[in-house]
Amino acid sequence: MTTSRPDSAELEAFIARAFPSDDGEPFVHVEHIDERTVRLRKMHRARHLRPGQTVSGPTQMALCDTAAWLLIMHNLGFDAAPSVTSNLNISFLSRPLAVDMVAEGSLLKLGKRLSVAEVRLFSEGRDAPVAHATVTYAVLRQSEQP
Amino acid sequence: MTTSRPDSAELEAFIARAFPSDDGEPFVHVEHIDERTVRLRKMHRARHLRPGQTVSGPTQMALCDTAAWLLIMHNLGFDAAPSVTSNLNISFLSRPLAVDMVAEGSLLKLGKRLSVAEVRLFSEGRDAPVAHATVTYAVLRQSEQP
Amino acid sequence: MTTSRPDSAELEAFIARAFPSDDGEPFVHVEHIDERTVRLRKMHRARHLRPGQTVSGPTQMALCDTAAWLLIMHNLGFDAAPSVTSNLNISFLSRPLAVDMVAEGSLLKLGKRLSVAEVRLFSEGRDAPVAHATVTYAVLRQSEQP
Amino acid sequence: MTTSRPDSAELEAFIARAFPSDDGEPFVHVEHIDERTVRLRKMHRARHLRPGQTVSGPTQMALCDTAAWLLIMHNLGFDAAPSVTSNLNISFLSRPLAVDMVAEGSLLKLGKRLSVAEVRLFSEGRDAPVAHATVTYAVLRQSEQP
Repeated sequence: MTTSRPDSAELEAFIARAFPSDDGEPFVHVEHIDERTVRLRKMHRARHLRPGQTVSGPTQMALCDTAAWLLIMHNLGFDAAPSVTSNLNISFLSRPLAVDMVAEGSLLKLGKRLSVAEVRLFSEGRDAPVAHATVTYAVLRQSEQP
Repeated sequence: MTTSRPDSAELEAFIARAFPSDDGEPFVHVEHIDERTVRLRKMHRARHLRPGQTVSGPTQMALCDTAAWLLIMHNLGFDAAPSVTSNLNISFLSRPLAVDMVAEGSLLKLGKRLSVAEVRLFSEGRDAPVAHATVTYAVLRQSEQP
Repeated sequence: MTTSRPDSAELEAFIARAFPSDDGEPFVHVEHIDERTVRLRKMHRARHLRPGQTVSGPTQMALCDTAAWLLIMHNLGFDAAPSVTSNLNISFLSRPLAVDMVAEGSLLKLGKRLSVAEVRLFSEGRDAPVAHATVTYAVLRQSEQP
Repeated sequence: MTTSRPDSAELEAFIARAFPSDDGEPFVHVEHIDERTVRLRKMHRARHLRPGQTVSGPTQMALCDTAAWLLIMHNLGFDAAPSVTSNLNISFLSRPLAVDMVAEGSLLKLGKRLSVAEVRLFSEGRDAPVAHATVTYAVLRQSEQP
């Protein structure tokens, strides 16, 4: 079987279907993807904010997790969509601003069983990251499911 | 200043105000808390499920994070409510069932600056944990804010 | 193939061969092991100390790593000795004393591909842990090696 | 008090004193350091190898830990030498070769209380990292010790 390599638009459409938003707007924009790196943008929306905060921790974690998942699917095709997170380690570095959040992910390893990616989150327009995550996936294939 | 030690009911009311649910039902139940341990129950609701899954990763992370936060507030009072997560490390062990989720947290350290707690998540009625997290908080006090 | 389940003495002899000490004394004592839990004791020796410290960070990490490895071999036999650490997350909680160090490990998951264990380290005779680690192994079998 | 910013040579001499080698050769070479990044080289020596392996896990962890510590001291001066590791998360990606090991660290945050650095380890001459660590330090100052 030849593996198609889904591009930014296909991946963006895929995650919009996987995580439908309640207003029909896409969950995240895939600004760039190649074999090693990905850049996502999560549009700022007031309803993701908790009181006194800006972007919630779980929302930040979900964005890191998505970045790692997209790197796997870009490399292995949608056949690897069943891959699941086995470990996520996140350091919260500073309070995000109430603006778009940008995730820059880079693939550290893509093995037969495990994939490891590193992801930095930024508040749009700022140099210092607001969070840093290491995300490990167990690589699973649709074609190998029983 | 004397530190009051909030009990289960006070903590449950506090987080219900901090994270209001859209149907008025409490986010989690605080089934037990003492100086060292906490047990939370998150009621099963269909809308927290993503397709093909049961309880989402971010929801599991949020529950672990809440368990660690409650242990700090039970020990230091609501004065420590501004404390923030500095690191969260979570291992996803097995797919949760579509039932209530129970979090059992235990405090490993409560220092002046940092608190570290360990949390295990279970699908109600099962012995094997579905996830395990280590949660580090930077301890901050309302009374010390500028 | 039947899997023999190595006991404490066999495991202790195994790691003494794997990590020979320079004075012929065993690296660690395996005080207890069962399917789910292990307890190791590392004898206090002055030469493992760095100046101003007690037991070094790398020594603490190695002890946690060994505890997780022994749990795998006790369950799967020495056939699983080639298993390798894929992730280790350790929180240093307090300065160890210049006494024996005790590791209490518990197995959270033993899957076909991955094993996850949690390990707490104590200075002998103290209640509060000095460190806490989560150790993930990729499970590999001698009998499956190419 | 003015903070002097120790350079590569001063830092290399400092860690050679802190971790004396048994043959008088320096533990690591500090090839580069600036406010944000550091590059260390650990010379290959047969005695750090365990049987069937190349560079041991604890040795890799120690190198990541040292990289993070040097970034703090370069920024804050030797006054910050008492800083201690509070968390270390390491992913082992592939088996190191029996050659020099190079660590490339970058500072993600340097706060009043906590510092977070990311470190990648490489076998000399190879593109793919053998390990990736996130290292959190509690920042402590000599001048603030009781």
